[in-house]
Amino acid sequence: MIYQRVAFIGLGLIASSMAHAIRRAGLVGDMTGTARSARTRAVAAEIGLVDKVCETSAEAVRGADLVVLCVPVGAMAAVAAEIAPHLSHGATVTDVGSVKQAVIDAVTPHLPGHVHFIPGHPLAGTEHSGPESGFAELFDNRWCILTPQEGTDPGALDRLTQLWRGIGANVDLMDPPHHDLVLAVTSHTPHLIAYTMVGVADDLRRVTDSEVIKYSAAGFRDFTRIAASDPTMWRDVFLTNKDATLEILGRFTEELFALQRAIRRGDGDLLHDYFTRTRAIRRGIIEAGQDIDAPDFGRAKR
Amino acid sequence: MIYQRVAFIGLGLIASSMAHAIRRAGLVGDMTGTARSARTRAVAAEIGLVDKVCETSAEAVRGADLVVLCVPVGAMAAVAAEIAPHLSHGATVTDVGSVKQAVIDAVTPHLPGHVHFIPGHPLAGTEHSGPESGFAELFDNRWCILTPQEGTDPGALDRLTQLWRGIGANVDLMDPPHHDLVLAVTSHTPHLIAYTMVGVADDLRRVTDSEVIKYSAAGFRDFTRIAASDPTMWRDVFLTNKDATLEILGRFTEELFALQRAIRRGDGDLLHDYFTRTRAIRRGIIEAGQDIDAPDFGRAKR
Repeated sequence: MIYQRVAFIGLGLIASSMAHAIRRAGLVGDMTGTARSARTRAVAAEIGLVDKVCETSAEAVRGADLVVLCVPVGAMAAVAAEIAPHLSHGATVTDVGSVKQAVIDAVTPHLPGHVHFIPGHPLAGTEHSGPESGFAELFDNRWCILTPQEGTDPGALDRLTQLWRGIGANVDLMDPPHHDLVLAVTSHTPHLIAYTMVGVADDLRRVTDSEVIKYSAAGFRDFTRIAASDPTMWRDVFLTNKDATLEILGRFTEELFALQRAIRRGDGDLLHDYFTRTRAIRRGIIEAGQDIDAPDFGRAKR
Repeated sequence: MIYQRVAFIGLGLIASSMAHAIRRAGLVGDMTGTARSARTRAVAAEIGLVDKVCETSAEAVRGADLVVLCVPVGAMAAVAAEIAPHLSHGATVTDVGSVKQAVIDAVTPHLPGHVHFIPGHPLAGTEHSGPESGFAELFDNRWCILTPQEGTDPGALDRLTQLWRGIGANVDLMDPPHHDLVLAVTSHTPHLIAYTMVGVADDLRRVTDSEVIKYSAAGFRDFTRIAASDPTMWRDVFLTNKDATLEILGRFTEELFALQRAIRRGDGDLLHDYFTRTRAIRRGIIEAGQDIDAPDFGRAKR
């Protein structure tokens, strides 16, 4: 047993996948969980997601030696304030938010000195949400980034690392601002761009929605998967990782304007060179086991 | 038999998939093919892709009652000029180019009056290229858009439609400029944006390529698939569908700036509304059978 009792605050895709994966690996004594929505709690209870679904966060964290905050980044401060008086002495508190500095700023002031706060972010997900969307394999061979602060207890960090490894993930340590910049590149800006492209297509007068849908297999549909992700979670990401996202967006538009100008001028060599260079990163991702090489993500032969 | 002999000029992903699908359905007498590269011809011959691999286009089209131009859009004019004197009387010439008006402008002047030219575009593909990348299922339940011009022979159009339906596709007719606009939305602009995002990520000093690769599963990797498509094909698409692509790109940057401003100002309501609206198109695409609903394109549980 790595932990005696794990409490999940929030029971969406990440929490429910962690619960399945923890059960698969048999790593903890028991699990509790709670969610703000009564419907989510009812579904979680019905499918037996955790051993006990609680009405309140206070009840859920009682006796837990690991508490995992799985709520949107904008809700972290309120949850931290709510659970603080009920945390067990020496418990570890972690989170799974997509932004790290903002979570640290929101949570740290509320937590008592006797708990270990180790922020975390598993880089895994799907476009689905809610307590029924989780599955045990979500973290297999994905990366979980932990951003411990100076003075973090090595023993507490080691236990949390063991838990993530036990449910299939690789673990890296990073400082919070660098995490937020890296994720602005590999996640936040791509999501914003995908949302934008889908919004544009939805809003044209000369091309109908039904045309967009019928002819989406030519590339567009890939963007709609990402743009179907949870709106509250993503609103909070952009509001709390503002600077890094705006920096990368600035780079993106600069680059887009350069390609746009090449198209306008008919500079085929520039376009060809650019499109050749981008192939290498795809190869790197496949070699690193972070995507499959099957054509069209393996959809093609279904 | 819908056709006695089909000739493919160019033996990449689309031609090789057509060859497999035609063979699966038993729709034609025999197939010939040629490609500019000796290596492509050798591979095609070795895997028995068509009944006869020819050294030249002139030889490939001899006796064919259907000729399919499967070369990048920029190469269409030269190929049309080369095959013109060797086409059989009453043969149909079609193509699979991603842009239609430019192909019509490039090909029509070269073709003799005794052949039927019916431009076409199957909206299907993967990020892989070459004679070995084809598979029979590529066109199943995808759309093929034909853009016949005024005065096209109805019998010739009907036969070509039957062929596409016979290899699994749905067929729509469209006028060429509207095709080019629709594809600028559902394919060309998404590809340019994906190429740009991958290019930006590759070019940052503060985030290394190895970080981008390791942490790509948080969204970025989806863009790398599209950005791994054939550079020559895509260069030609942007050079020949310049106006429609620049129009949609203009709409895209306008919209991106609006979202960027919302992030800067902290306008969470605008972001949340926007991210909610884009979910509907994803549902439409899944209901229309143009994508699968499995989380993460079904990659998640592999």
